[in-house]
Amino acid sequence: MKLYKANIIFTREKDRFEVVENGYVGVENGRVVDVASSADVFGQQVEEVIDYGDRLLIPAMNDMHVHAGQYRNQGISMDLALLEWLNNYTFPEEAKYSDTRYARRMYSRFVHDLWRYGTMRTATFATTHLESTRLLMELFREAGMGALVGKVNMDRNSIDALLETVDEAEAANEALIAEWNDPDSLVRPILTPRFIPSCSPAMLRACGEQAQKYQVPVQSHLSENLGEIALVRELEPESRFYGDAYDRYGLFGQTPTIMAHCVFSEGEELELMSRRNVMVAHCPTSNINLITGIAPIRAFLDKGIKVGLGSDISGGHDLSIMRVMVYVIQVSKLYYQKFKDKRFLSLSEVFWIATKSAGSFFGRVGSFEPGYEFDALVIDDSDLNHGNYTLPQRLERFIYIGDDRHIAVRFCRGQEIPEPRILD
Amino acid sequence: MKLYKANIIFTREKDRFEVVENGYVGVENGRVVDVASSADVFGQQVEEVIDYGDRLLIPAMNDMHVHAGQYRNQGISMDLALLEWLNNYTFPEEAKYSDTRYARRMYSRFVHDLWRYGTMRTATFATTHLESTRLLMELFREAGMGALVGKVNMDRNSIDALLETVDEAEAANEALIAEWNDPDSLVRPILTPRFIPSCSPAMLRACGEQAQKYQVPVQSHLSENLGEIALVRELEPESRFYGDAYDRYGLFGQTPTIMAHCVFSEGEELELMSRRNVMVAHCPTSNINLITGIAPIRAFLDKGIKVGLGSDISGGHDLSIMRVMVYVIQVSKLYYQKFKDKRFLSLSEVFWIATKSAGSFFGRVGSFEPGYEFDALVIDDSDLNHGNYTLPQRLERFIYIGDDRHIAVRFCRGQEIPEPRILD
Repeated sequence: MKLYKANIIFTREKDRFEVVENGYVGVENGRVVDVASSADVFGQQVEEVIDYGDRLLIPAMNDMHVHAGQYRNQGISMDLALLEWLNNYTFPEEAKYSDTRYARRMYSRFVHDLWRYGTMRTATFATTHLESTRLLMELFREAGMGALVGKVNMDRNSIDALLETVDEAEAANEALIAEWNDPDSLVRPILTPRFIPSCSPAMLRACGEQAQKYQVPVQSHLSENLGEIALVRELEPESRFYGDAYDRYGLFGQTPTIMAHCVFSEGEELELMSRRNVMVAHCPTSNINLITGIAPIRAFLDKGIKVGLGSDISGGHDLSIMRVMVYVIQVSKLYYQKFKDKRFLSLSEVFWIATKSAGSFFGRVGSFEPGYEFDALVIDDSDLNHGNYTLPQRLERFIYIGDDRHIAVRFCRGQEIPEPRILD
Repeated sequence: MKLYKANIIFTREKDRFEVVENGYVGVENGRVVDVASSADVFGQQVEEVIDYGDRLLIPAMNDMHVHAGQYRNQGISMDLALLEWLNNYTFPEEAKYSDTRYARRMYSRFVHDLWRYGTMRTATFATTHLESTRLLMELFREAGMGALVGKVNMDRNSIDALLETVDEAEAANEALIAEWNDPDSLVRPILTPRFIPSCSPAMLRACGEQAQKYQVPVQSHLSENLGEIALVRELEPESRFYGDAYDRYGLFGQTPTIMAHCVFSEGEELELMSRRNVMVAHCPTSNINLITGIAPIRAFLDKGIKVGLGSDISGGHDLSIMRVMVYVIQVSKLYYQKFKDKRFLSLSEVFWIATKSAGSFFGRVGSFEPGYEFDALVIDDSDLNHGNYTLPQRLERFIYIGDDRHIAVRFCRGQEIPEPRILD
């Protein structure tokens, strides 16, 4: 067993931080044995003590919704609403990934920058292209970082270069599942019908059947935008609500499911999400940038619906989940200003969402409780810590004003993760 | 004359960028002579050409509202609304500045970090303490950066340690004006009655008289919060609106005036602001963090009211005016979603607000038009520029996802500004 000594902060429950000043985390076979304030607790099994001094030790970040194939467009073209933005900026960019050299160049930067911001687990959309999706999975494996990677499926309402037939989609999904669906692997496939407007009933049915047959998780978009919701109502007239349309095809919690956005989810849709244990990927930067709205996160928490955070590059502009946490609190304050019964989120709640709640999608990930995989960040905030701050204040400052320079060491499943290569 | 060669981007009008690829800025005696695409235009007067290669050259940033005396509290205690936050976190922190050693430690970090983020001109609140305010002015002078520094005046509704009498306030203001009010100096005093709730009628009258007598500018807070507005109505029952209360004491544009926030300014207040040329310091991060609301910036622009941006540390959490620009666009999108006749702000509009519009408070500052003081930043975005971006896209990416690491060189009034010292 290895012991890591530092100022340890994590969440067990959402309402408060667990703080162990100058404490120890014991790690064996990639998993946390326990956290304690003395090394004695761990007895004779200790091989090595690694002392991080006055630094902070926190769980690593999880990004539950991001488009790897839009990485070039991060931080540009923030001037259009969702459907226009898709057609004018996003689809033409994704089409470039038919070229695996282009994919290698961009995806290596994407994986590198996830590392940079301490995101050790990611649920990501690639593009429709099989070869470059495989390449992205290889880059994650090489880096030693966890990822659920989705080859995007779509057969309508896009540009020709991105459309595929249902047969093509099924064959590509099948190939990735055959190659990558090892339950012990850090990198695995996730079925990814883009969203209802991009997928014919036949495509949705095929995805749902593959999810069921191979017990593979699912990710898509839900109730992001009023225009989109109206379109889904037209396209799926028999569905009672947007989520019900996914449900009819076996894509709404029949296997573990992430739905991004859920800005306008309410009523029956919430009931079904709760019952089916669908995880919401909350993407506040994207929701502001694309002028969609503010998701009712407090209502989700009150209903026991699981929530994780997504950077949603390139609708979102910031890959740092720390920075996204700040936006989560901020948009919850704007929401609270309007609906006074929906108290805004506290720092511990947002931290819990980003780490333990999100991490649950990958297994026992996102906390330092016994049995959790040791995904962790060592934070060197010495240049921020000039004012006699408490440990929770130091964490708050790191989240609000720190950046990648403050992340000194990164662990995924117990392994220290070195800087991934950038390829050209 | 010196020539600086780079990819030049600035705004003359708010609706579009002026872009000169591989262009030249001629600078003499600290001021821009002209911008041109060829060096020939500048004739025989050129002593030196400094070539920044493929880098961007943009006007430097201006921070029109920030509390230097709250710097320790940046990024903590984001859990309370304005009046509670003032009493529990902010006033006790400001009281520490009776100790000039503490002030030196914190203020040197404050000036350093303004430099770091490329903010070359600042309108700042210090605290009520004369000695440490003087120290802050000295630190700005030593750094070579422009600042209007306000010793805060307040004689009611605060903790005892921060209250002063009107006589004490007048004497301290007088001392700073005598020492520092040189029209050519980069660092000058600005009269700073904290806000109506903190200042008795006698204090407000004294400040207004000193502003008039010495022709010194004024800064304060206006219409930030509904609770505050109700309190002002009680305290100043004869005033027709909040701004009118300042106006009655000669503190509303009788000399150049900055009013921070103006979230709830409307109707007659807007009319008076427009007539008196009062500048709004728009502080969107603070307005979200403290749950105040969203200022109607489009309405201000439509009325010809001048706007600048403020980081408002520590109500705001981010000292970078680039980061504040992103929030300005984002909150304008939220506002637009509610009021469809108030189109959200474009990147060029926000850039113009942060540079040329804000800079006008300091003279001819914030643009590269002939006669403007050369306040500039050289941006090395090479690690962000991996996708064949246009120059405006490179600027947009720097603003959305760049940070201080991308600022290679900083100029204030024609002088290259080296990194200021951090003192302990």
